[in-house]
Parts: sequence; structure tokens; C-alpha cells
Amino acid sequence: MNRRTATEAVHIQEVGLRDGLQNEPIVLTVRERAGLVEALVQAGLKRIQIGSLVNPRRVPQMAGTDQVWKMIRKSQGVRYSVLVLNERGLEQALAEWIPHVEVYVSASDTHSRKNSGASLKQALSSAVRMVSRAVEGGAGVTAGVMCAFGCYYEGGVSQERVLEIVAALEEAHPTEIALADTTGMADPVAVKRMVEALGKAIGSERLSLHLHDTRGLGMANLIAALEAGVRSFDTSVGGLGGCPFIPGAAGNISTEAAVEALENMRFSTGVAAGELLRIRSDLEKLLGRTLWRT
Amino acid sequence: MNRRTATEAVHIQEVGLRDGLQNEPIVLTVRERAGLVEALVQAGLKRIQIGSLVNPRRVPQMAGTDQVWKMIRKSQGVRYSVLVLNERGLEQALAEWIPHVEVYVSASDTHSRKNSGASLKQALSSAVRMVSRAVEGGAGVTAGVMCAFGCYYEGGVSQERVLEIVAALEEAHPTEIALADTTGMADPVAVKRMVEALGKAIGSERLSLHLHDTRGLGMANLIAALEAGVRSFDTSVGGLGGCPFIPGAAGNISTEAAVEALENMRFSTGVAAGELLRIRSDLEKLLGRTLWRT
Repeated sequence: MNRRTATEAVHIQEVGLRDGLQNEPIVLTVRERAGLVEALVQAGLKRIQIGSLVNPRRVPQMAGTDQVWKMIRKSQGVRYSVLVLNERGLEQALAEWIPHVEVYVSASDTHSRKNSGASLKQALSSAVRMVSRAVEGGAGVTAGVMCAFGCYYEGGVSQERVLEIVAALEEAHPTEIALADTTGMADPVAVKRMVEALGKAIGSERLSLHLHDTRGLGMANLIAALEAGVRSFDTSVGGLGGCPFIPGAAGNISTEAAVEALENMRFSTGVAAGELLRIRSDLEKLLGRTLWRT
Repeated sequence: MNRRTATEAVHIQEVGLRDGLQNEPIVLTVRERAGLVEALVQAGLKRIQIGSLVNPRRVPQMAGTDQVWKMIRKSQGVRYSVLVLNERGLEQALAEWIPHVEVYVSASDTHSRKNSGASLKQALSSAVRMVSRAVEGGAGVTAGVMCAFGCYYEGGVSQERVLEIVAALEEAHPTEIALADTTGMADPVAVKRMVEALGKAIGSERLSLHLHDTRGLGMANLIAALEAGVRSFDTSVGGLGGCPFIPGAAGNISTEAAVEALENMRFSTGVAAGELLRIRSDLEKLLGRTLWRT
């Protein structure tokens, strides 16, 4: 990767409101979450996952995601999305005209059974149906693969398996394909190999990466993917998403660190880093804890 | 960088005892520090900076570095080193037969004046003299450049300036050249450019990098340097070296994260990651605070 003179765009999706808040012991109100979404839009973020549509008894932090959607002032050109875990959630998203949905399936059979109660095979055919239905319903769709770089239960996940899952998802014509390093087990070599193989199969411009910093490699993995042609990443303000009970336990890549690094390397994110620091500081007050700081 | 089948060695120098402890409000005793050095050797580290020889009134945490050296059981094949800031410290190191010394000069004139009270030019000629004297005295020498990737006071530092400084240091025949990202301002693009230029000038195998994770890019920078041929890095257990009063403020790259990542990428560090976790846990007890955790 060489220093370029013209800037090239990199798309940053903020996922803190979902992948971050769902781990926090303090549950934010609908109004607080809507305020955060609007502040993130003000900061220049053009892709925001506002939450997930999931049984509130299972994940109380995500209760009222539909109300967050109703409450926010919608801005032109922003891709608001929700994560849906089942057909019920998907139908709700479509009924509410949420413009973009994300559907994930795990590359690990064991993780799939523990996470969703379904085998990989069952979960995959359900995901393919959901992607089809979402496309038919007029929504943009991210079809994602969890544990794409390894699983705590099964260890390594083969590239072949990920390619097969992506091929199956592709038949339902999602807008983009996402790979999630759910366990933080990826390293830059693995990322590059996987992205190059997937780039050949579907085009790297349709690929997005959801990377965790569990082992301190989040940013290194982002840059390896960037070198291999990926231009879309999930990040979270303050690196939300780690275990809040372990000080310093890393979650997602921090949005402010990613924005700063990308802008320094002459990529254009459209995001104002200074605004993010204010949002992080507001979040620290709301959650009563210190977040990752650059 | 492709996945390799045979393992290639990467040299990790532990600098926590110097660059870490010098920032801590709790001062460890000579015996505690000597115990840490021995534990690090047990964990497989072959390069350990045991402290700096500096006025104890200026840096009380480093008082008695010579006694740490006297107290430890010396192990064959381990490169014990000290940082020396002036000729007095250097003479002490040589008198004590400390086998390896490190001499640094700042690439920023402003930083040099604030840090050492000498202009870049003065500090450089003094550093060249010290390197010569150390070589003559039979010690191995790392000649390093601080702020090689930028300075808080001056902003960017040009590649030309760094190459000039290195060329001057090279005339005194140091064992290796180190570049320090003292302020954490490097990014992978800048690292690659600098390492490629320096590799041409002196050979990348004689180059070592001292990277900080101030902005979350430490590991990404390490990997960029690795791709450009560097095989020697400074790291610290628990990422010691950040500001202890700001929770989550990053210091050096954490040794345990670097070892784990390198081993996963099939590089051989010779270090047992599990042992490092025990040392980190001991350090947390000694320092009364939580350190970076993978």
C-alpha cells in the first residue's frame, strides 16, 4: 500500500449501538439511543446499525430498537440498519421500512448451535430465505458470516467453508457480504488470504469486515483487508463491545482510532474525529465507565 | 506477506522494565525488578532492557539499575541492555560490564531541547561519540532515533532527516539501528516507507522498531515493518508505558499480544505466551493497577 495523492473513500459502519450496547450492564433508553444515532450522523457517519430486532427478554439492551428507528430524524444518504436474528425480526424491519438489514450465519456448527440453537446447515438455509425475503421486501441486505476466522469451540475455520457459505448466501442476492471475526482470532495473514479468495469470488468492493480487537490485532487486520481491497468496515465508538467487567478488555475496533488512522493514510471517511470524541465522552457518562481512548 | 511453512525468527526485546516502569507512580524495588528480569528470561525472552542508567533524582523508578544487573542470575544467550542518556551512564554501564547499551537521539530539534537540553546537532554528535566509546568498550550498541515518525512539537519528521541521523550514527558502527515512534504518530504507510528506505541504506536485518500503541496502531505498524523485512521489535508486558492515570491509555505494544500474533503468523519468538500472562498478573499486583489484557 503506497501513500496516495488522491483520497479514496472508506465506508465506516458504526455498530456500537448494537454490538456495543448489547454487552453493557446499563440499559440505555430509546431516547438516549436515538440521541446517539443523531449525534453519529452529525459526526459524518453514513452507515449506522441502530440496534437489533430481537426478543427483549433475551437482550433487554436492544428492547425498543423499532422505537429508536421511529424517533430519529432520518438523514438523506445515511444507511440505517438493524441486525435481524429470525424471520419475525425481519418482518418487523420490513414493516417499519427500515432501509437495510443484516443477517448473519456462523461458520462454526458448534457456535451456531450454541448461539441460535440451529445447526450450521439449518441456520444457513434459514439465512438464505431471510436474505431473499429482505431483497424481495425492498431492503438493502448485508449477509454476514460469523466466526469467519475461527471459533472458540472448533478452532480454525477453513477458507473453503467460508467460501461455500458465501456462495450459498450469494444466491439470494444480498447487497454486500460481511465477514465477522467474532472471536478476535484473525491475524493479518489470515485476513489477506481470505479477502483475496473472496474478492475473486464476489469482488472485494462488495465485502465488508467486522473485526474485533480481542487480541490487539483489530487495526492490523483492518489494514491487511484494506491492502487487499476492502473498503467497508464495522467499528464502534470507544471500542464498545468488550466485556465491561474486565477493564481494558477490547471489543470492536474503535471508530475514532479507525477514522484517525484512515484519514492519516489519506483515505476519506467523511467522519469528523473531534465529534466522535464528544460522543465517546457522552457515552462514558451514560454507561458510567471509561471507554478506550486514543 | 504470505503464510510461510518454515518458521522465521523474530526478536522481541522486553522494554517494560524501563519504558514501562519509568511512568509508574509506584517505584519497584531492585529485588522486585531483578525478579521480573529472571521471570522474563524464564518465559523465553532473549533481549531484555533492564532499566536506564540515569540520575535517580530525575527518574526515581530507575534508581539502582546497576544493582538490578548485579543481582540477577545471568543466562547464556540473553542480551541484557540498559538505556544510557549521557557519558556518565555509559561509563557506568561499561564499568559494570553490561553487555549491551542503547543510545538514543531525537529526530526533532524541539523535542531534543526539551528532553535533553541539547539541540539536535549537539545531541547527535554526543550520541555518535557515545556509540563509538561503547563499541570501543566492547559493548553491543543499539543506536536509536526518537520521534522518527513525528513529534508533538514539530509535527511530521522527514524521511531525509531520519536517514541523515542514521548515516551519522552509522559512522560509529553500532550493532543495530532502532527507530522509535515515541509519540505513537506512525501509521503503516509511513512505517513501510521509512523501513524500505532505511533497509536500502543499512539492511533491514540491522533495524529494530520501538512502537507505541498511543493511537491503536502499534500492532498494525509492527506488521507493516515485518512485511518490509524488520525482524526486531521492542514491546512491554501488559503494554506498560502508557499514562497510568488514564485508564486504557495505551503504551508500548504488549509483549503477550505481539508474541501471540507472531506465533499465529508462523514466526518464531521463542517466548511462552502463558508465562507472560503470569508475569503480567504479578506486575498488576506490584503496580496496583490493571494492565492491558488480550
